[in-house]
Amino acid sequence: MTQSVEQKASGAESATNAWLTAFQQALTARDADAAAALFASESYWRDIIAFTWNITTVEGRAGVADLLRATLDEVDPVGFAATEEPAEDGGVITAWIAFETRAGRGSGLLRLVDGKAFTLLTTLDELKGHEEPLNGRRPLGVRHGAFRDRVTWAESRVREAAELGYTVQPEVLIVGGGQGGIALGARLRHLGVPTIIIERGRRPGDSWRKRYKSLALHDPVWYDHLPYLPFPASWPVFSPKDKIGDWLEMYAKVMELDYWSSTTCKSAVREGDEWAVVVERAGADGTAAEITLRPRQLVLALGASGLPSVPEIPGRESFRGDQHHSSAHPGPDKYKGKKAVVIGSNNSAHDICAALWEVGADVTMVQRSSTHVVRSDSLMDLGLSDLYSERALAAGVTTFKADTIFASLPFRILPAIQTPVYNAIRERDAEYYRRLEQAGFDLDFGEDDSGLFLKYLRRGSGYYIDVGASELVASGEIKLAKGQVVELTENEVVLGDGTRLPADLVVYATGYGSMNQLASDIIGQDMADRVGKVWGLGSGTTKDPGPWEGELRNMWKPTAQEGLWFHGGNLALSRYYSLYLALQLKARLEAIPTPVYRRAEVHHAE
Amino acid sequence: MTQSVEQKASGAESATNAWLTAFQQALTARDADAAAALFASESYWRDIIAFTWNITTVEGRAGVADLLRATLDEVDPVGFAATEEPAEDGGVITAWIAFETRAGRGSGLLRLVDGKAFTLLTTLDELKGHEEPLNGRRPLGVRHGAFRDRVTWAESRVREAAELGYTVQPEVLIVGGGQGGIALGARLRHLGVPTIIIERGRRPGDSWRKRYKSLALHDPVWYDHLPYLPFPASWPVFSPKDKIGDWLEMYAKVMELDYWSSTTCKSAVREGDEWAVVVERAGADGTAAEITLRPRQLVLALGASGLPSVPEIPGRESFRGDQHHSSAHPGPDKYKGKKAVVIGSNNSAHDICAALWEVGADVTMVQRSSTHVVRSDSLMDLGLSDLYSERALAAGVTTFKADTIFASLPFRILPAIQTPVYNAIRERDAEYYRRLEQAGFDLDFGEDDSGLFLKYLRRGSGYYIDVGASELVASGEIKLAKGQVVELTENEVVLGDGTRLPADLVVYATGYGSMNQLASDIIGQDMADRVGKVWGLGSGTTKDPGPWEGELRNMWKPTAQEGLWFHGGNLALSRYYSLYLALQLKARLEAIPTPVYRRAEVHHAE
Repeated sequence: MTQSVEQKASGAESATNAWLTAFQQALTARDADAAAALFASESYWRDIIAFTWNITTVEGRAGVADLLRATLDEVDPVGFAATEEPAEDGGVITAWIAFETRAGRGSGLLRLVDGKAFTLLTTLDELKGHEEPLNGRRPLGVRHGAFRDRVTWAESRVREAAELGYTVQPEVLIVGGGQGGIALGARLRHLGVPTIIIERGRRPGDSWRKRYKSLALHDPVWYDHLPYLPFPASWPVFSPKDKIGDWLEMYAKVMELDYWSSTTCKSAVREGDEWAVVVERAGADGTAAEITLRPRQLVLALGASGLPSVPEIPGRESFRGDQHHSSAHPGPDKYKGKKAVVIGSNNSAHDICAALWEVGADVTMVQRSSTHVVRSDSLMDLGLSDLYSERALAAGVTTFKADTIFASLPFRILPAIQTPVYNAIRERDAEYYRRLEQAGFDLDFGEDDSGLFLKYLRRGSGYYIDVGASELVASGEIKLAKGQVVELTENEVVLGDGTRLPADLVVYATGYGSMNQLASDIIGQDMADRVGKVWGLGSGTTKDPGPWEGELRNMWKPTAQEGLWFHGGNLALSRYYSLYLALQLKARLEAIPTPVYRRAEVHHAE
Repeated sequence: MTQSVEQKASGAESATNAWLTAFQQALTARDADAAAALFASESYWRDIIAFTWNITTVEGRAGVADLLRATLDEVDPVGFAATEEPAEDGGVITAWIAFETRAGRGSGLLRLVDGKAFTLLTTLDELKGHEEPLNGRRPLGVRHGAFRDRVTWAESRVREAAELGYTVQPEVLIVGGGQGGIALGARLRHLGVPTIIIERGRRPGDSWRKRYKSLALHDPVWYDHLPYLPFPASWPVFSPKDKIGDWLEMYAKVMELDYWSSTTCKSAVREGDEWAVVVERAGADGTAAEITLRPRQLVLALGASGLPSVPEIPGRESFRGDQHHSSAHPGPDKYKGKKAVVIGSNNSAHDICAALWEVGADVTMVQRSSTHVVRSDSLMDLGLSDLYSERALAAGVTTFKADTIFASLPFRILPAIQTPVYNAIRERDAEYYRRLEQAGFDLDFGEDDSGLFLKYLRRGSGYYIDVGASELVASGEIKLAKGQVVELTENEVVLGDGTRLPADLVVYATGYGSMNQLASDIIGQDMADRVGKVWGLGSGTTKDPGPWEGELRNMWKPTAQEGLWFHGGNLALSRYYSLYLALQLKARLEAIPTPVYRRAEVHHAE
């Protein structure tokens, strides 16, 4: 076999190596200024617990120097190197990197422009001595040999489940057993952190099953994998809600999670370095018993949204038809031929309107403020498919790489990156948007035209991913009314302009309260105020007041309250950040030093 | 970027390409003799449904020419080509190949020696126009748009499950819901073949859960994956039985199999081109109802073994202690301090002896004939790890490649390939074997020293994969007795040489009857006789009478009875051959011509 490869480094490769060598030298010399000088004047270093034991982004050379001065001695970073050949595109070199710290092994993504770092992402992916039991480290399962009084796997699982929470206290209590709690629970199980997940629902997955029957994931399958056990190659692109429910249920089982269903959290009080959490758990016979758990760490994974938010409307009590919040909507089946008024114009409102129309109800949507609408196809093609698609996978973009690429884009510059995507979508779907506007629908693309994902990060609402309802709105099949609801009569919804909408059914697709509000029911208002607002970037846009935070408030990182954590987000965020939250919890269990750099200030109690 | 790769084909590559080009030319010219001349005088072509709609191995040039003359016109093979760079080792070139037939797309493995084919494996992997809905072909899950009277996924699943077997007849009925039935059911679901699996047990996985409590898989995890959904990277090397049970249960659920548990098959009668199968299915209230199913295809997946086989021993009824077959052994817990006699010396006997010893029973094993014993570690290191291990995966040997490599070794030469492996094991573990023999244990390595896997293929018994019990035998902790059991008294087991073994417990680890016997209970003795023996190669060794068959009798391929199929084997064989059995069934559903070349003759009714 005669093959020769000329081993001359590419320009991208030599530039990357030169930068990494200089950076490592500066770090080794503990020379924060020399390291900072390798960054461009406009530059961003996002660190996820590798240097800072925080999730934080510093900006510019001063930011970099400050971070390094505060962390270098403790972190002792070594071995910065590229892990594959860097790519160059439009003057930007992108390099996958790896490094080690005193505590663990990390990776990241570096973007160089003119030889200087424009963005750097660093993440700590595993703790030395506490690596996950994967592949070559997987457990044997059964201990070969002969041992007196052997305990089998099944016996040991039964015993563990019976003891945890009763005679053995969990290290971590996760309140909320949706995809967030389950993904984090699986990470913690792999890291050997004793954890209980509590969930109101009767079965894992009920948070999906119990919702309106037409619900399906609006995100495609490539974006939705849970850790460790990806969906099979035949899994549908958009999971119907019950199928996701079944998947979560089997996942919790095969991952051996200590998942307490039919359990509610009554209160959590901090006592010394642990929590006293009172929960009510239903027994096999259905009777509920109060139990006080004493975890050191409390994770609230209550969903990206808080309690159902129903507006105060005069006359609500006199309305004679059915009325309920979208979260309690049973589905359309009994409303065939009835007059339905759906208040709101975001995802749930559209889904419910379309499902009611499909059974032959007379449907009116009440739009109270402008809404961002994007066709699902366009979002997939232009917004996601470089990272999450069969095409991306074929190009070597694994789920972890896609997550990392997305995480490597600093929130500060994300609007500038996203706006062109949505401009392209507006152009591609110009006729579609024209028809929606002609039907009277008020559109927006976010206050700075940055589109859906930023709306999600800033306020978690204000949009509809169109899977079919917009055509019904455009064609008038779903009637459109606009303005605020000022009154309900026995059989009408009355709007501010005097419009009277006859109604047999009123659905309040009016969103949810804040996560903080939900938390306050558990940890009390005082502590909730001290911890402050959860979610949002401080962008100074609607529902996301400034000042600028640089990261999502309180998510997956240390809060103002020691031992209190927030976890959640869509399946993708739950998957990615659960690793880093789990490592923070594991490090604390193992008493590995975790000095937090620049713990975020609290600006909004909310 | 300056890189130059000299594109000069390697010797292996040019030899492979030359062979494939000549082979394709001969096939295109329908010149069977020219194609046969490309094979060595000693050569083997194993075809799995690509050319023959059978699983068959032809030998030598005459065999090749005969196969081609019979099949070429119908198969119309095109596009024979290598799919990656061939490897050369010790004068043997190994090449991964692909091709197409009129019906579908195939792949395989070619071994060349001195420019001639020594072995060729061809498999048909998918049917044109009926490809599995994987990756880019996966279903959308939810239909975007608005449609009157939409049916959701959950509603459609409920309806399908309620109708199948009642108002809609299944195309395929699989009797037996262990790993074999489940793997095949998943394949058929992906191919859109309406299938019911019936299983006596209450839950999928009960065939594992109900066995003795110390049972774990003796095969390592890399060998055990089911189709579509591999075990996660943290799955234990040797699955404890209950964990496998849970996995099978969740797999049947998320794969949406129509799995009728608590259902028994009473009889199956062929009527025209379908079956009338009477089953008894337990309802939700526990009462059983008889239902007649009318599938066109009947698959018996009853396990590699038949009914528990308990020897007729005089005095059995007078024995006052506990006595049961190994399949009914509850585990050791209530035998602490008791005297246990375990009759048999294969896997179950060893496992049960060790577990009894572990709780402190006084244990005697009765060895009735010589046994093949291999240490699990040695089997993994020397027998499996080139194909099924972390090391193999790291070297690019995926599960499908490993399965294909194994399938590419013709059964005729497998003993010659396996014997050196077991010779190496004997050398490595010489001291271990010496100690076992010193303790009086009768060892063998198969009649031709070809070891465990050939014993499995020939007779499915006669061995123990040592996970710890042999040390107890060698050290005398498990006492050893030898010979035939001639009588039971009230409290003793009496052997042929007059030895009397006091016993509170007798376990008959005496194996199982034949698959054919189990089948005859369902299809009747006449049809069972006509179909003949199932499993075994015709090697002329114990329990595997000749003549030589070349393939496993009746497994995964057409039998003497149209519409009757046998499926099973360990997890690995169930995984691999379920694809090819499923494709045979799908082709028949779609009325794709499936002329069977050289349907095996029946030599043994048994």
